[in-house]
Amino acid sequence: MPQPDQHSHPDRPAAEANADTSALSPAEARARFRAGLVTPTSGYSAGFAQANLLAVPQEYAFVFLLFAQRNPKPCPVLGVLEAGQLSSELLAGGDIRTDVPLYRVYRDGELAAEVPDIREHWRDDLVAFLIGCSFTFESALLDNGVPVAHIEQGVNVPMYRTRVPAAPAGRFSGPLVVSMRPVPAAQVADAVRITSRHPAVHGAPVHVGDPAELGITDLARPDFGDPVEIADGAVPVFWACGVTPQAAVMESRPPLAIAHAPGHMLVADARDIAYQVP
Amino acid sequence: MPQPDQHSHPDRPAAEANADTSALSPAEARARFRAGLVTPTSGYSAGFAQANLLAVPQEYAFVFLLFAQRNPKPCPVLGVLEAGQLSSELLAGGDIRTDVPLYRVYRDGELAAEVPDIREHWRDDLVAFLIGCSFTFESALLDNGVPVAHIEQGVNVPMYRTRVPAAPAGRFSGPLVVSMRPVPAAQVADAVRITSRHPAVHGAPVHVGDPAELGITDLARPDFGDPVEIADGAVPVFWACGVTPQAAVMESRPPLAIAHAPGHMLVADARDIAYQVP
Repeated sequence: MPQPDQHSHPDRPAAEANADTSALSPAEARARFRAGLVTPTSGYSAGFAQANLLAVPQEYAFVFLLFAQRNPKPCPVLGVLEAGQLSSELLAGGDIRTDVPLYRVYRDGELAAEVPDIREHWRDDLVAFLIGCSFTFESALLDNGVPVAHIEQGVNVPMYRTRVPAAPAGRFSGPLVVSMRPVPAAQVADAVRITSRHPAVHGAPVHVGDPAELGITDLARPDFGDPVEIADGAVPVFWACGVTPQAAVMESRPPLAIAHAPGHMLVADARDIAYQVP
Repeated sequence: MPQPDQHSHPDRPAAEANADTSALSPAEARARFRAGLVTPTSGYSAGFAQANLLAVPQEYAFVFLLFAQRNPKPCPVLGVLEAGQLSSELLAGGDIRTDVPLYRVYRDGELAAEVPDIREHWRDDLVAFLIGCSFTFESALLDNGVPVAHIEQGVNVPMYRTRVPAAPAGRFSGPLVVSMRPVPAAQVADAVRITSRHPAVHGAPVHVGDPAELGITDLARPDFGDPVEIADGAVPVFWACGVTPQAAVMESRPPLAIAHAPGHMLVADARDIAYQVP
């Protein structure tokens, strides 16, 4: 299976490639990933929702869904593929085992593999949860003139474990994970207002300002994703992140869990606007 | 166990009793039910949320929670008591087996008993789901001058099975059940606007007007609850109802399920306003 990364597109310069990916339909984007393209998906298929993936064995399905129900900000459930189900209206004509650009396999809570095709690791008893992603509200931020640093800088969004515990459910527990976007001070209120309208995709920030209060010691060293440069006058703003379930997997150690690699999301057929409240 | 009904309060006339029940704290209301009072709870503890109950064996917990996730209008989950858990912050100091005024026991989908205390039927492997109830938005309707017929008429809200299927999940499927409130034509828009602000407790109506389109043939013969008189000029307005899970139990026939008797809800410690969006 070929594993090109995001810099390996030979046909065109990077800027044109970016413009191009934002115009792809979700099905076209998924077809590229299915064919082997490995890239973070921020900026892909503008206007369409992206989703986090977590698949766990059937016997863990209830506690995980309950964990999501109790932690709606980091874990808003957009859809569930029951055991044996490989596609749904969120990835019409697709296959959850091939259509995400990069997957992570956790065995007993340890990262065991990172692969662009999960078919050899998949089991028929896996239940796959698709969870809202903050990429969904990034178009709304951009449309409203709020800059999104990691898109401008061409890197994956930085994500951090916090010392804030998520609400546990049965055997599932772990820390809240957050994504961070630096926002110019004069636009912080706009960023709050705009993202508040997307409660199904993490909604309003969980924290504005001092990262130390969340237990984050160094913004330049994210736990997942890439660091971003923070411009003078910008305030770090933190949103609940769909990687939270992966952090719970690491702590709770189910025998098998399959997730997207952070930032490498399922590009879904649902429109961002479907998750917006008036 | 004594089983007085709602007409059995010997100490005071009905009107005074009504005023009294709306001022009870949820804990006080639950204490009365625990002591044996059997009554529909509409109008109790004004400003506090009421909840539907459905408890199923652990092996059905995932499919039921998934059913709720796929049917958020009829089945908004307010809280879940895991197997062995008998209380939570929604019924502080209480016991889910005694604090609802009247319970229904379903065995293999058939109504097997209706009792005010469920302790003799309870099992340690039951998982109890607390689901939002439209009673929660009735105070908001009243506060905004929209009359609520079943409260005025002193009866239980009428509820109807529809021919609209709920989204199935695994072994769980069944029809959407709705509650009906007749609303003066000039206030239908207000009723929509007000209840839209409560998405966690059924939210906006699912249907306004002709009951035949939902497959309801006779408003005077509800499937659950009591009929109400419909004043001239009032339009029947239908909301998704938390009895939907009971209809799914009847169709899907788990070996055991325990529910509240329709209209006889858990009076919860959460405030209505906690489930209101701006």
